[in-house]
Amino acid sequence: MDKGAFMEKEIVAMPDKWPFTQHVMNLSTSIIREILKISSQPGVISLAGGYPSPDMFPIEDIKQAAIDAIDEFQSTALQYSFSMGIPQLREAIAKRETELGSSTKMENILITSGSQQGIELTARALIEPGDYIVTENPTYVGALQAFNFYQARYAAIDMDHDGMLVDQVEVAVKKYKPKFIYTISTFQNPTGITMTEERKRALIDVAVKYNIPIVDDSPYGEIRFTGKPVPTMKAVGGEAVISLGTFSKIVAPGLRTAWMNGSDKIIHTFEKVKQGADLHSGTYVQYILYKYLETGKLPDHIKDLIVSYGEKCNLMLKEIEDNFPEEMTWTHPEGGLFLWCELPSNMSASKLLQEAVKEKVTYVYGHPFFPDGQGDNTFRLNFSNATLDDISTAIRRLGKVFRRNMT
Amino acid sequence: MDKGAFMEKEIVAMPDKWPFTQHVMNLSTSIIREILKISSQPGVISLAGGYPSPDMFPIEDIKQAAIDAIDEFQSTALQYSFSMGIPQLREAIAKRETELGSSTKMENILITSGSQQGIELTARALIEPGDYIVTENPTYVGALQAFNFYQARYAAIDMDHDGMLVDQVEVAVKKYKPKFIYTISTFQNPTGITMTEERKRALIDVAVKYNIPIVDDSPYGEIRFTGKPVPTMKAVGGEAVISLGTFSKIVAPGLRTAWMNGSDKIIHTFEKVKQGADLHSGTYVQYILYKYLETGKLPDHIKDLIVSYGEKCNLMLKEIEDNFPEEMTWTHPEGGLFLWCELPSNMSASKLLQEAVKEKVTYVYGHPFFPDGQGDNTFRLNFSNATLDDISTAIRRLGKVFRRNMT
Repeated sequence: MDKGAFMEKEIVAMPDKWPFTQHVMNLSTSIIREILKISSQPGVISLAGGYPSPDMFPIEDIKQAAIDAIDEFQSTALQYSFSMGIPQLREAIAKRETELGSSTKMENILITSGSQQGIELTARALIEPGDYIVTENPTYVGALQAFNFYQARYAAIDMDHDGMLVDQVEVAVKKYKPKFIYTISTFQNPTGITMTEERKRALIDVAVKYNIPIVDDSPYGEIRFTGKPVPTMKAVGGEAVISLGTFSKIVAPGLRTAWMNGSDKIIHTFEKVKQGADLHSGTYVQYILYKYLETGKLPDHIKDLIVSYGEKCNLMLKEIEDNFPEEMTWTHPEGGLFLWCELPSNMSASKLLQEAVKEKVTYVYGHPFFPDGQGDNTFRLNFSNATLDDISTAIRRLGKVFRRNMT
Repeated sequence: MDKGAFMEKEIVAMPDKWPFTQHVMNLSTSIIREILKISSQPGVISLAGGYPSPDMFPIEDIKQAAIDAIDEFQSTALQYSFSMGIPQLREAIAKRETELGSSTKMENILITSGSQQGIELTARALIEPGDYIVTENPTYVGALQAFNFYQARYAAIDMDHDGMLVDQVEVAVKKYKPKFIYTISTFQNPTGITMTEERKRALIDVAVKYNIPIVDDSPYGEIRFTGKPVPTMKAVGGEAVISLGTFSKIVAPGLRTAWMNGSDKIIHTFEKVKQGADLHSGTYVQYILYKYLETGKLPDHIKDLIVSYGEKCNLMLKEIEDNFPEEMTWTHPEGGLFLWCELPSNMSASKLLQEAVKEKVTYVYGHPFFPDGQGDNTFRLNFSNATLDDISTAIRRLGKVFRRNMT
């Protein structure tokens, strides 16, 4: 064998040179997920993620539901199942959605693997490269990540304390012909702002006039600890709205079980898109959730969450008032998981994160939430995950960092 | 209020007119899933799906693992987790993969929501509209469904009893510059054919020469009940191969937990793609599988599966020999879940399915498995799901249908 033949035999695979598509090569990893890695270091208090409080998970109830699901449904709980989800859970969700104000049947509910998949399926079904999406400015980073994959562009709409500025929406809709309007209308991520009923009606009018869907992402709309409830977007808008609900924040995120609620005319289209993506969501976890719902304990559990998160939010607001410099501003959410802070416009929340990490506190700086990349003087604080003691400690440390950097 | 203003108020949403992308509107529902709906009618014996035997699920062991996962990991088992999957499970999978012949570290393993998601992530990362994919002819319908979403075209390669004809592959690679080669090299779906080691080496040579990945979908490669084991594609090809493994066929599909095994150089790219799709796979089911693997019961469970499926396959083959007309041919798989039948070329397995359904038996007719739409005289039989008695009954009924239609 000559040397040439030998070398030909030795050709090695070069996976890093495989023909990945250009937009996949350009994907950046989630900045939040990178900050979460820092946050998981020992001694660091994380106000960064959107994690619900692990102390509040109904652990023993889920364990019992896991036992009950197997005892009652046996092998069916572990077999392949429907792309739409198991009928028992869809029925139970439809009943809850109806109680929450939007008349819903099982046929309207498609089970998804977390709301992230609902966002992703919406993007898959509607976006072609270069299409515009209307979002709040700022908006949920994970949604931007999903939309970016399809090379979406953004008509990012400013908010006041009543939510998205609908006048701007109509201008943008006329100009950019967006494929849908994505909103987190209640206790918005990242700002904590809730859209008023009047604003919702105005937004729905625009959506219906131009026949584009409103996608209302509502992961913690039920966790209201103060103020007057506002009808949900779905309750107000009916078939004009696809709403995304999830058990992640009201039961536990590790079950990865969520749902889309939409007109039966279109939910079957999403079913087909989901089939190709992962056939169907986990059968066993769906039966576990069904058995858990059957105990009737969820409403009281949500009441407990409201008390706990309300207490945490209040404490955080009090500590902020006592410790943050007066040049800063922040929101006063009536529910949810987040509040939102602004530093003076010449300061950088992303640079200050380095100092915060040295003080063993993390937050998520704001600019990744802005489709237009502005907002470097903003950041998001989560109040659900840390303990009360840690919230006090963390805000005091952050106050020290901000005060000494104030010019 | 005049009538015009009133009518303007009454504008109704028209979700069925929303701007879905053209290729989503063109999506057809999975034909297998439609046949499965018929199959679930009372009294019908299904030889249609790729369902593992529900009688073989380790139900009590999974229930115990579900309890142990909560007892040991508490709230961590229910919280958000890593996009790559939980380290304990990735470590355990890497150890198994190494034992099965391909040296694997945790860094090579990305947990997915079923192998379908592994197929989907591969398509997402590599296919742009009009790109070619090399597949076996016929191949797994679910893979075609995932690839079709990205508007792939196919270089579908014929097989003999040793697998894909590699000479044809090289011609196709030169001509079409495909993005990857998709193969189910062991106990192929739908044919049951296993690629020889020699053929695998030849295929890998082509893939390395043109630097395109081989995606080896191997859901039941361990379920061999006869013949001599062949080294896996991953064991032979190393970094040239992305292999897709799953717990669906060796434990239970309702857990929706599978994995990609690839070079650490590229697995991080898939991690980013997965982040946008569903953040991460179910935390609780991953801990359940970890606790189940820790019991050390899986190897014996696989041995039991091999005995059971071997017995079922043998019975099906015997009944086929006794009952199918001599004009027909069929494969003799050494493992897996399927065998493949051919009627004379002028007969239609899709038309005959109607008669089979009247006799209360279902199978999956063959043409959806062919990227080029041929094969209407072929069909697939599953032998894992039905009981021994039902297999005998079903094959006798099918024999009657085929014999009376033989021209």
